[in-house]
Amino acid sequence: MHIGMIGLGRMGANMARRLARGGARVIAWDRAAPARRALERERRVTTVTDLASLLQQLKAPRVIWLMLPSGKASADTLARLLPLLAQGDVLVDGANANYKDSMRRAAELSARGLHYVDAGVSGGVWGLANGYTVMLGGEARAVRRVTPFVKLLAPPKGWLHCGPSGAGHYVKMIHNGIEYGLMQAYAEGFALLAGKSELSLDVAAVAELWRHGSVVRSWLLDLMADMLKRDAALEGIAPVVADSGEGRWAAIEAVELGVPAPVISLALAMRFASQGKGDYGAKQLALLRHSFGGHAVSKQKKS
Amino acid sequence: MHIGMIGLGRMGANMARRLARGGARVIAWDRAAPARRALERERRVTTVTDLASLLQQLKAPRVIWLMLPSGKASADTLARLLPLLAQGDVLVDGANANYKDSMRRAAELSARGLHYVDAGVSGGVWGLANGYTVMLGGEARAVRRVTPFVKLLAPPKGWLHCGPSGAGHYVKMIHNGIEYGLMQAYAEGFALLAGKSELSLDVAAVAELWRHGSVVRSWLLDLMADMLKRDAALEGIAPVVADSGEGRWAAIEAVELGVPAPVISLALAMRFASQGKGDYGAKQLALLRHSFGGHAVSKQKKS
Repeated sequence: MHIGMIGLGRMGANMARRLARGGARVIAWDRAAPARRALERERRVTTVTDLASLLQQLKAPRVIWLMLPSGKASADTLARLLPLLAQGDVLVDGANANYKDSMRRAAELSARGLHYVDAGVSGGVWGLANGYTVMLGGEARAVRRVTPFVKLLAPPKGWLHCGPSGAGHYVKMIHNGIEYGLMQAYAEGFALLAGKSELSLDVAAVAELWRHGSVVRSWLLDLMADMLKRDAALEGIAPVVADSGEGRWAAIEAVELGVPAPVISLALAMRFASQGKGDYGAKQLALLRHSFGGHAVSKQKKS
Repeated sequence: MHIGMIGLGRMGANMARRLARGGARVIAWDRAAPARRALERERRVTTVTDLASLLQQLKAPRVIWLMLPSGKASADTLARLLPLLAQGDVLVDGANANYKDSMRRAAELSARGLHYVDAGVSGGVWGLANGYTVMLGGEARAVRRVTPFVKLLAPPKGWLHCGPSGAGHYVKMIHNGIEYGLMQAYAEGFALLAGKSELSLDVAAVAELWRHGSVVRSWLLDLMADMLKRDAALEGIAPVVADSGEGRWAAIEAVELGVPAPVISLALAMRFASQGKGDYGAKQLALLRHSFGGHAVSKQKKS
């Protein structure tokens, strides 16, 4: 039970911990020294200072798990890693990658006698304690090699070989698309509660209430109830919601398949709007109302 | 612990059972004889054949719980009930009523020395076993009179005095609006899984998987996983989704408050579209494309 872990960010570091605490021996590397140091005292985790050492400390055929930011970071590390690997090695990509890239990478690695498994991982900062849901894509024999480690990461029944290469990241992408829609639906509902000033509703108490027997109870609601208990006014929080690639990919997939996913797509658009990406359009509309109706236009405050 | 229960449909009958099993004595009436008969063998439930008998069997000041379809059925029964009530009686309206009607009714009853409590009830057919979430609106002293019964209906922590009259039905309306958005987000995600034929995904297995450790786990997902396990193809199910008043009221409320709730509103519009209410517009668009581009228009099959 030896495994290499590359990328020791928020997710990768906790996954290395969970693997080690489950009994695996983990050889871990991150290009950032502080990320490596944070794992130094963990039992059964050995941190190394370069990729070559990581490979030396694992007997071939190896299992190496990548938890790198999607895009350039993943591609660069993969390019440096490839010449160092031996026939039969299995690379698991646990980052949020576009499933089309994963399909392409699986084919490229297969041509070199290597195996690629795409792994969608959900669970966030709670995964260390609760376990991570793991969605796997790839050939059966490669997935079998990875399974003992996946069982340490996931809660019971919390992992699935979803299908061929790309299937793991596809299912994770849809998971995150749904997450966008769910979050937006709750956010709108709570805004309608907080906005109904004549009823002076205790938004935190309502969130807690709905956890007990209601149709909308969920893990996201559990988080919101905790959050609102600490601060229901949300003062001092900027109303800006970032988006990662997954929501965009899900919206694009809906267009490519010709399957309507208006709520997922609109939840994404609301995040864009929160980032100020709709401001140019709003300015234009304000001016246009002025042009045809003489309605007042307010000046933007200099920030 | 005596209570009257009026309206023994799916919700009312099970609530009468839960109250009786919890130790209350329930006098129950429904205008439909089969609904009354279904409760005849329940211990501590007495069914009566008319409203007057129900009132006779309860000592004033009474607590009477209404579980009637919203709109005319509620209004008619209330009109017949009002002259029979005595000062200090408490009427609880547990139906899905518009909170504005509830505010008006509370004022009308108050003028006659009666008390009105609006109660949003969630839990569906699972409420009998799991308990119902109960959201209450009304004056504190009326709510206090109702609380012993509410504690029998709700799971621990599953009830809240939300605020003044109307607050219970308002919170329930927002709850159901959120429910529309959540359901639509899941439905879109599963359609994107089922529609990705090249990956041959097992939609039922994915639903089950997500229940274990993922960010999108919820009670609705539990239901979907059970449902898809029995039949993932969904053949023979008409793609038509009904809507009750609550979703419409939530969308209207968002407009009246001027608070954006696009996902809740769009989830409602998708239900309208599933009901064929967008067909006229779609026909028009098909014809318009023909007019400017010569694109083919297919004829509708006679059904």
